[in-house]
Amino acid sequence: MSNVVSVNPATGETRILDIKESSPELIRELCQRALDISRDLADRPLAWRASMLRAMADELERDAEALVHDAMTETALPRPRLEGELRRTAFQLRFFAVVVDEGSFLDVSIDHATDSPMGPLPDLRRLRRPLGPVGVFGSSNFPFAFSVPGGDTASALAAGCPVVVKAHPAHPATSQRAFEALVRGAQSVDAPEGTLALLFGFDAGLHLVDDPAIRAVGFTGSVAAGRSLWQRANDRSVPIPFYGELGSANPLVVTTAAAKERAIEIATGLAGSMTLGVGQFCTKPGLVFIPSGAEGDQVVVALVESLQSLREMTMLSEGIADHFRTGASRIARQSDIHTLFDGGATAGTSATAQLFSVAATTFAQSSSPTLYDECFGPVAIIVRYETTTELRASLHRIEPALTFSVFVGGDDADATWLLEVGEQKAGRVIVNQYPTGVGVAWSMQHGGPWPATTVPWATSVGAASIDRWLRPVTYQGVPDQWLPLALRDDNPLGLPQRVNGERR
Amino acid sequence: MSNVVSVNPATGETRILDIKESSPELIRELCQRALDISRDLADRPLAWRASMLRAMADELERDAEALVHDAMTETALPRPRLEGELRRTAFQLRFFAVVVDEGSFLDVSIDHATDSPMGPLPDLRRLRRPLGPVGVFGSSNFPFAFSVPGGDTASALAAGCPVVVKAHPAHPATSQRAFEALVRGAQSVDAPEGTLALLFGFDAGLHLVDDPAIRAVGFTGSVAAGRSLWQRANDRSVPIPFYGELGSANPLVVTTAAAKERAIEIATGLAGSMTLGVGQFCTKPGLVFIPSGAEGDQVVVALVESLQSLREMTMLSEGIADHFRTGASRIARQSDIHTLFDGGATAGTSATAQLFSVAATTFAQSSSPTLYDECFGPVAIIVRYETTTELRASLHRIEPALTFSVFVGGDDADATWLLEVGEQKAGRVIVNQYPTGVGVAWSMQHGGPWPATTVPWATSVGAASIDRWLRPVTYQGVPDQWLPLALRDDNPLGLPQRVNGERR
Repeated sequence: MSNVVSVNPATGETRILDIKESSPELIRELCQRALDISRDLADRPLAWRASMLRAMADELERDAEALVHDAMTETALPRPRLEGELRRTAFQLRFFAVVVDEGSFLDVSIDHATDSPMGPLPDLRRLRRPLGPVGVFGSSNFPFAFSVPGGDTASALAAGCPVVVKAHPAHPATSQRAFEALVRGAQSVDAPEGTLALLFGFDAGLHLVDDPAIRAVGFTGSVAAGRSLWQRANDRSVPIPFYGELGSANPLVVTTAAAKERAIEIATGLAGSMTLGVGQFCTKPGLVFIPSGAEGDQVVVALVESLQSLREMTMLSEGIADHFRTGASRIARQSDIHTLFDGGATAGTSATAQLFSVAATTFAQSSSPTLYDECFGPVAIIVRYETTTELRASLHRIEPALTFSVFVGGDDADATWLLEVGEQKAGRVIVNQYPTGVGVAWSMQHGGPWPATTVPWATSVGAASIDRWLRPVTYQGVPDQWLPLALRDDNPLGLPQRVNGERR
Repeated sequence: MSNVVSVNPATGETRILDIKESSPELIRELCQRALDISRDLADRPLAWRASMLRAMADELERDAEALVHDAMTETALPRPRLEGELRRTAFQLRFFAVVVDEGSFLDVSIDHATDSPMGPLPDLRRLRRPLGPVGVFGSSNFPFAFSVPGGDTASALAAGCPVVVKAHPAHPATSQRAFEALVRGAQSVDAPEGTLALLFGFDAGLHLVDDPAIRAVGFTGSVAAGRSLWQRANDRSVPIPFYGELGSANPLVVTTAAAKERAIEIATGLAGSMTLGVGQFCTKPGLVFIPSGAEGDQVVVALVESLQSLREMTMLSEGIADHFRTGASRIARQSDIHTLFDGGATAGTSATAQLFSVAATTFAQSSSPTLYDECFGPVAIIVRYETTTELRASLHRIEPALTFSVFVGGDDADATWLLEVGEQKAGRVIVNQYPTGVGVAWSMQHGGPWPATTVPWATSVGAASIDRWLRPVTYQGVPDQWLPLALRDDNPLGLPQRVNGERR
């Protein structure tokens, strides 16, 4: 197998790393080892599992300086952003330690034997068990938070599953270093060898999805790649769940009342949100609905002004930058599309912000995916609407998304129906805030109806992301001595239990 | 479209019903209507939703005599069984009313805005919302409990989803009558028209899975039909979750200690379990592991004696009986298989019990699906093992299943590892009881790893079956007046809430 190459997108410099692409034999071996230790891992005490997650967070922080340096070199993202992302990633590991300690994720339920109108019911006790080895695909845009040490890895380990990660080719050195930190954390608490493994190379991803030891996959990336791997997971002789967080245009609506109240403030924030991380966020607002007329014009003018102050930016890779240029020029070529702002031509990994506009009447009747699909990068399409009816018709046309944001006035009469539309179309509905931040929290939902996510209920951020890696098992008529501790009447683990239907 | 035909499997008599097979236009119209009213249905108060489920149960019971009569005519199942099944079905609807009233299924979580190591976190509030119209495929073997008024319908309505059922061709008159009872219940509480719809005909099932208004499907049936419809659901331009409860051989292990203690008792119960409902249960024990030697022989002899006392039985349809005969004779023709009992040749809808045996050493090395796949009907394969090692190797070979039962002695040293195997291979692990009963309860899991279920975490029975029809939505920064009632700080609905990570 050939060596893995690391590219500096800012300079174009390439380094040949001392890492080989993973051979099919190695992948098979690592996946099988993950399966072989999965029972051991699943059966360790919850407190041990939490301690492993905390040790991993500690080790990441211990190597923060080198990790951030590697990531800067491989992503061209600025230091403060990467330092913040690493803090978030360590926080996320510790957050899942809290989720494990709390124990609700086991969904313990105990029904004592009883009589019922359907006859006698036996003693039934249910808890959730880990699915087994999980395959994870690191994303290009978050070298820490959605990559090797990211949310999919953290939630799967928290569920008690071994993890085999396929590193994203845009940051292999960062991936390797983060992997080594996590392994040190695992070793420090004597985790079984094979709890975490790392693969490199395009083909490695295909082998990973195909491997019979793998029980589920987590993926963050494009609709095209995600749908193709999802298909592959379904084509296995034993299909497995494929949790893909794919594309999203993240519609954002500014009402007339909001535009009247605070046009400049909204526009400035929006410019920041759509160009944050060079627009390389899965939650970048890509479709912005702004009223026609003077109030709307004020928002648009201020938005263009904000974009004008931006310099040329460096994207994560030349491939991503090429893709962005192609996408933006495809939008520009659409009939009835106006270019509001063009930051200028670029080449290589460079990009400038782009802003387009289209009339709501055109948008509502368009059948062109160019108008409503995600375009990754610092670009947005403004949809100008004359009336609420036009706005409604345009929103009817949009694709489901990860987020749906509305900027409204104090007692805005349009808020209610807009929130209703948002709830139908997205997994997170936001009022007077931008969608780009995705907090790690109990109440986060980072997922939405297809094509935002391959599984409509799944989230890849927040406490509920652990649910993807679990499967309930019911024990019927099992004497106390053979029951898992979590299911015993005296509740030795102190877990939240439902007993005979009542939450305890 | 042609008229629907009802067949009496006991007499072969056919009736042409005054019901047409559903045309593609009608299916489109019914699915679209379901979508059109789905928001109205979703937004009705929980107490109203519970009252609808109770009214449906009442109406089923009010028409019990005619329903049982229709079902006897169409299924040849005995009156007490059908009366019991109808009681169960009404109980199930009322059980889901309790689940709705209790409110945990909404999984409400509120995180107030706060600071964190990853920076300030906004106010985030999550609850689960209904997915929208659900397609349901009634099963052949339970004309009530897994058909029109069954668990998929009850749980989807409880989730707040409209339901479009495709009636099973084995009991169309029963389906129509049950549908009418449910509709009367719905009307009595002024449910929107289109809350429930019923389709007839083979093609209707295909159109149902394809219809763009349908958001998820529940199915109970064979691996072949289920896998084909699952594929269809994935092939849509917008794929939807397909919850199929498919085949399962339901392994049952008798240890040497158990055989020593109570051979006759175990054998008698086993004969009853494997022939209950003419073996037409998805939880029928089809693979029975019995030790060699005198203790095991006692179980086998007693089992054969019990089967000998059974008369010829009538299966649900000639198709199912033919399928059973083909399957049983395929087993009989396998090399190294011994026929332990053959109830005699049958034709039409008749069937007799069949019992086969195979050595564990043969079973463990076999690659023939005939040995380890489900054979629907009153048949089981006994696997005789000499040693624990042989038993382990054989259990390693079995396919995942809905259930895994063990009969053990009082302090049986084999119990622990057997339960571990069971937990890996099945969704329900049972000690010293038979798998055929599936109680409607908070702690039930009726599902298992592929091919038992298309989605590993899903259950089609019990409180958790409601989870299949829900999708979380997070509200970020939404002022109180626009928040759903369930998410408000003063908790006007009195729901279980998680607040800042703490269960309330």
